[in-house]
Amino acid sequence: MLKVPVDGVAEHRADLLAAEEPLEIRVDGEPLTVTMRTPGDDIDLAAGFLFTEGLLTRLDAVREIRMCDDNVAAVTLEPGQESMAARVAANRNFLTTSACGVCGKDSIEAIRVRSAFDVASDPVRVSPAVLAGLPDRLRQAQRVFSRTGGLHAAGLFGPDGTLLVLREDVGRHNAVDKVAGWALRSGRLPLAGQVLLVSGRASFELAQKAVMIGVPVLAAVSAPSSLAASLAKESGLTLVGFLRETTMNVYAGEHRVVTEDAPVAASS
Amino acid sequence: MLKVPVDGVAEHRADLLAAEEPLEIRVDGEPLTVTMRTPGDDIDLAAGFLFTEGLLTRLDAVREIRMCDDNVAAVTLEPGQESMAARVAANRNFLTTSACGVCGKDSIEAIRVRSAFDVASDPVRVSPAVLAGLPDRLRQAQRVFSRTGGLHAAGLFGPDGTLLVLREDVGRHNAVDKVAGWALRSGRLPLAGQVLLVSGRASFELAQKAVMIGVPVLAAVSAPSSLAASLAKESGLTLVGFLRETTMNVYAGEHRVVTEDAPVAASS
Repeated sequence: MLKVPVDGVAEHRADLLAAEEPLEIRVDGEPLTVTMRTPGDDIDLAAGFLFTEGLLTRLDAVREIRMCDDNVAAVTLEPGQESMAARVAANRNFLTTSACGVCGKDSIEAIRVRSAFDVASDPVRVSPAVLAGLPDRLRQAQRVFSRTGGLHAAGLFGPDGTLLVLREDVGRHNAVDKVAGWALRSGRLPLAGQVLLVSGRASFELAQKAVMIGVPVLAAVSAPSSLAASLAKESGLTLVGFLRETTMNVYAGEHRVVTEDAPVAASS
Repeated sequence: MLKVPVDGVAEHRADLLAAEEPLEIRVDGEPLTVTMRTPGDDIDLAAGFLFTEGLLTRLDAVREIRMCDDNVAAVTLEPGQESMAARVAANRNFLTTSACGVCGKDSIEAIRVRSAFDVASDPVRVSPAVLAGLPDRLRQAQRVFSRTGGLHAAGLFGPDGTLLVLREDVGRHNAVDKVAGWALRSGRLPLAGQVLLVSGRASFELAQKAVMIGVPVLAAVSAPSSLAASLAKESGLTLVGFLRETTMNVYAGEHRVVTEDAPVAASS
């Protein structure tokens, strides 16, 4: 890498880049998808992807997931399971039932039907002070981040702010799927009473994954999208965006954040 | 939205969120993919996606692209064209020729084979001072960004720093595909002598899209990935990362950035 100043002398420096390689997820010998990811926790990533996309509803439907080479996660289903092709087709039918077209509302309804967990009923509350401290904890735990600056992070926290697990990836959806797969494979689902923090923005896809793993609070350092906020409202997920040291925006499920310490002013 | 300070009184505020809705791309009546995008420039997005993914090599293979409803772009190919299913299968075969697995090298080779343009031979040079000024120009042009804070941007610039086109989206790949589709449909490909700036990180996928549309310089405000840098080196694309007001890192194709005004020190 050549470091070039606008004024001054350019210098060669060593590259410290976030690793990115394709991972093929194969189910019963058939290629399902290829995702560009940072190698590591690949079996968690494969399991988490299948689960959060609604293609796998129970881990005991899987006989084995093993790395077939560095970049292929080979999933073998138990005998008698519905084929992955049938599951993919059923998933697609959820989204395209109307004669022409999909819309955000259909996408939200599909998630609601598919999720095994009801995050709306989760009674956890988290104080604004605890939430405000999470991004700093996440950054401190990101060993790799400080060196390469190119990795998204997803961290799972207890309601008191304890970090339970951290995963990093060049793709933010992959970081969340690695957390999901870790939780699925260690028998921790649903992630009741916990907070999922992502280092970037909160898209519909990330809100979907949160609902699928039953985590009641999704917090993002940056902005959520409109459809992420709609999904959160419909499904009872608390969605926090622009989470900073002294302030945050709560887009849905605010009852979990507003405690006696944080009164609400009349609408402005 | 509820704005919650760590100390003080929470207040209700109006939501200003980046719009996100699914777009289904349908080819000859068959659903090809669904992407979560910010509505707008959808026909460009569909055309750009097909082109940068190597599924369409010439615009005149397309009879028509029209919006079938708000969230469906329906592509009709000219008679006698290879079906999209066959193109998708051929694309996949590029990536999975070996008995077990894909790797970054295969991915790079696939792009090299598929691109209609040779960015390596592009003689353009861009001064560090011009490059350093681009992020600010991009941000100034992002009307929406300042209001929602949730949109990625892709801007195409001339070598003197003139902004040619700006597109925004919740998905950074979509922002680039909107630029690609605009260029394809207005007969501007390849984008020789130009600079593509993205507001976030430079992934392999974005470097791929840059090579496919023949733009010789890809600049990113944030970090590139290892595979983006490898693809850039292999294909002769200039890749600039961490583009800031006074400095930038050049990961490949540095001959286009280092001019007489910016000498290079001996390796440190």
